[in-house]
Amino acid sequence: MNRIQNNIGSPDKETARIEAFSDGIFCVAITLLAIEIGVDAKHVSSNQDLARALGQLWPKYLAYFVSFINVLLAWVGHHSLFRRIRTADNFIMIANGLLLMVLALVPFPTKTLGLAMGTPAFRTAVLLYTGYFVAVSCCYRLLWFAAARHRRQLVEGITETQVRATTRAENIGLISNSTILLVALLNPWLALALSFAMWIYWIALG
Amino acid sequence: MNRIQNNIGSPDKETARIEAFSDGIFCVAITLLAIEIGVDAKHVSSNQDLARALGQLWPKYLAYFVSFINVLLAWVGHHSLFRRIRTADNFIMIANGLLLMVLALVPFPTKTLGLAMGTPAFRTAVLLYTGYFVAVSCCYRLLWFAAARHRRQLVEGITETQVRATTRAENIGLISNSTILLVALLNPWLALALSFAMWIYWIALG
Amino acid sequence: MNRIQNNIGSPDKETARIEAFSDGIFCVAITLLAIEIGVDAKHVSSNQDLARALGQLWPKYLAYFVSFINVLLAWVGHHSLFRRIRTADNFIMIANGLLLMVLALVPFPTKTLGLAMGTPAFRTAVLLYTGYFVAVSCCYRLLWFAAARHRRQLVEGITETQVRATTRAENIGLISNSTILLVALLNPWLALALSFAMWIYWIALG
Amino acid sequence: MNRIQNNIGSPDKETARIEAFSDGIFCVAITLLAIEIGVDAKHVSSNQDLARALGQLWPKYLAYFVSFINVLLAWVGHHSLFRRIRTADNFIMIANGLLLMVLALVPFPTKTLGLAMGTPAFRTAVLLYTGYFVAVSCCYRLLWFAAARHRRQLVEGITETQVRATTRAENIGLISNSTILLVALLNPWLALALSFAMWIYWIALG
Repeated sequence: MNRIQNNIGSPDKETARIEAFSDGIFCVAITLLAIEIGVDAKHVSSNQDLARALGQLWPKYLAYFVSFINVLLAWVGHHSLFRRIRTADNFIMIANGLLLMVLALVPFPTKTLGLAMGTPAFRTAVLLYTGYFVAVSCCYRLLWFAAARHRRQLVEGITETQVRATTRAENIGLISNSTILLVALLNPWLALALSFAMWIYWIALG
Repeated sequence: MNRIQNNIGSPDKETARIEAFSDGIFCVAITLLAIEIGVDAKHVSSNQDLARALGQLWPKYLAYFVSFINVLLAWVGHHSLFRRIRTADNFIMIANGLLLMVLALVPFPTKTLGLAMGTPAFRTAVLLYTGYFVAVSCCYRLLWFAAARHRRQLVEGITETQVRATTRAENIGLISNSTILLVALLNPWLALALSFAMWIYWIALG
Repeated sequence: MNRIQNNIGSPDKETARIEAFSDGIFCVAITLLAIEIGVDAKHVSSNQDLARALGQLWPKYLAYFVSFINVLLAWVGHHSLFRRIRTADNFIMIANGLLLMVLALVPFPTKTLGLAMGTPAFRTAVLLYTGYFVAVSCCYRLLWFAAARHRRQLVEGITETQVRATTRAENIGLISNSTILLVALLNPWLALALSFAMWIYWIALG
Repeated sequence: MNRIQNNIGSPDKETARIEAFSDGIFCVAITLLAIEIGVDAKHVSSNQDLARALGQLWPKYLAYFVSFINVLLAWVGHHSLFRRIRTADNFIMIANGLLLMVLALVPFPTKTLGLAMGTPAFRTAVLLYTGYFVAVSCCYRLLWFAAARHRRQLVEGITETQVRATTRAENIGLISNSTILLVALLNPWLALALSFAMWIYWIALG
């Protein structure tokens, strides 16, 4: 029996591949966020002209900053979930595929936000952006539902307390992102500020 | 003898690298699908204007959705094949290289589909799209032909039943994608709906 | 206890993933530098016309060259740091996340430099470019501060001399990049030449 | 002593990372080749219009095909070299960095070729393209020179015959690519046909 043959019937190996593939998508998606940022070729008539053009890109810098942090935290959350999963069945595969499909789209709401910030279309862009992260949270919640529905798919030594803590964390993510979406209806800037507050929470949570 | 020297004469290691490289291409190709989606900078005169522009992107959302699922299933199928392959000879390398060359092109039929959906050029775009996936199926069939032509290239414990099951799965893929291409000549929407039906089949197959 | 379960409580594994993810971002960012380089579709009226257009791209070639080397050295420096880190706490994670966020932006100052070289806006572009690498250095300095503040986060056998050597290297990076930024205020070309001199230093340092 | 600490003083591990990083760049560069291919949004007035526009993309299909094979063979050659290298010193690192810098540029000559094929600027584009692959060959030759100059950097069990075979393969690559560049001065199409002939050679060589 060689190394490759061992894969047949070894679900752990398959989980490692799903994680590596997911990591790759996180990686490419997060790096593609940056390619939207740039000045037009016409803004090189003088140093002042270029400096002004660079300054006017602030909505794109801000959108990049917000999305990079969000995707980075999503990546940390993804590992957090998969560290608790021992083997992936069809349902988990589909839920993870759905999550990756939504996540790879992140350059779209990000560039829309960078485009509309400071324009009359700001509220719509923030609704798209915050709604997008509600969809991301739903995918995480679904993935954890798929994983936790049978205890045999979780790692062996996991305690009931650890399972409940993860469930609570996913619920908090979904509820807080939904709240931020509702706040965006009232005040787009307040919604972005609330996102920032949630980062502190997730980072403190570790 | 150190770790690297062991590579000389160790075909398994080489297969691992081919798989990692293939995974990387699947990863980048699938994530690049998203960069086509975006609104023009002119659609920010009002919230309604941006909302309407976002709504009019539905063909791009649909094309992204369809292609993401197709590439994800192709990735699952790629692992499925390589789990049965013990060592890669020249023929397998070429067949896999051909498959990757076709697969990395996926943003091209996808954006053509997203462009032409809802226009008078829809049928041509669907023919390109469905024809493209016939080409993908041909590559998979060729790869499996290359792998299964000598039993010594397959993993040791593999049974005749497993080999035949894989052959049947690859044949079904090729036949169903060819059928979808023929249906696209009659009715493009029906062809896309059939693709959807095939996903259910592949997912149920695991 | 299986492989995945072992991850719980194994900080090494988590560091390996952070490194792999960081490597992925370095990889994609460095490769995306090249997509900016190309001639307009109109320059194909004759062989001379295309040759002239290719020649006029020299600022983009130079910007690509400079940034590729800088990111490559940054990648070497990143490994150098992580080879000394045993386990990542929250502070290290945040510092590394900040570093990746800044680093993934590298196509932006690079294309601005390629755009403005040889124009009246050159000085502003060089200030952006050199200022950008001061920001990169600050992130490295912060990451090493986060890692070295508690000896228990460093690898076990590390000596006081090795820690001090790394601290000195990060300080030299920050000071030299800041000096290059100041020089850019006086003479943009001299600043780029100094970058080149620093490469020799870093490469000689190994 | 833990896993990470072992890295200090373990050159093998460092080679594995260089290979993984190089693979990542090959991967992203080869996949980015595809994003240039697409039709203009205006070609959707009828099925015939789109079909004609798709047909007129043949120079881009051909350029993609030629470059994909070239990069794939370069990737195989890269592994071939690194399988013989035990440890990387500064010279090898620099030579490999140079190789990656040149290789990541591959979308540039590829899209120039796709743009100029069938136009009066074809010869210039082929000179750029074939000249580019001479540069790639030079980097490979330099990398192998760096690796083979001290026997202690090669894997332990390697024979004099294997070293000479690799030297010969690198020399043949450099000479054949230089010849193709010279032929391009006389006849661009013949040069592309010769590239094709060399693929057969390399694939047969395995």
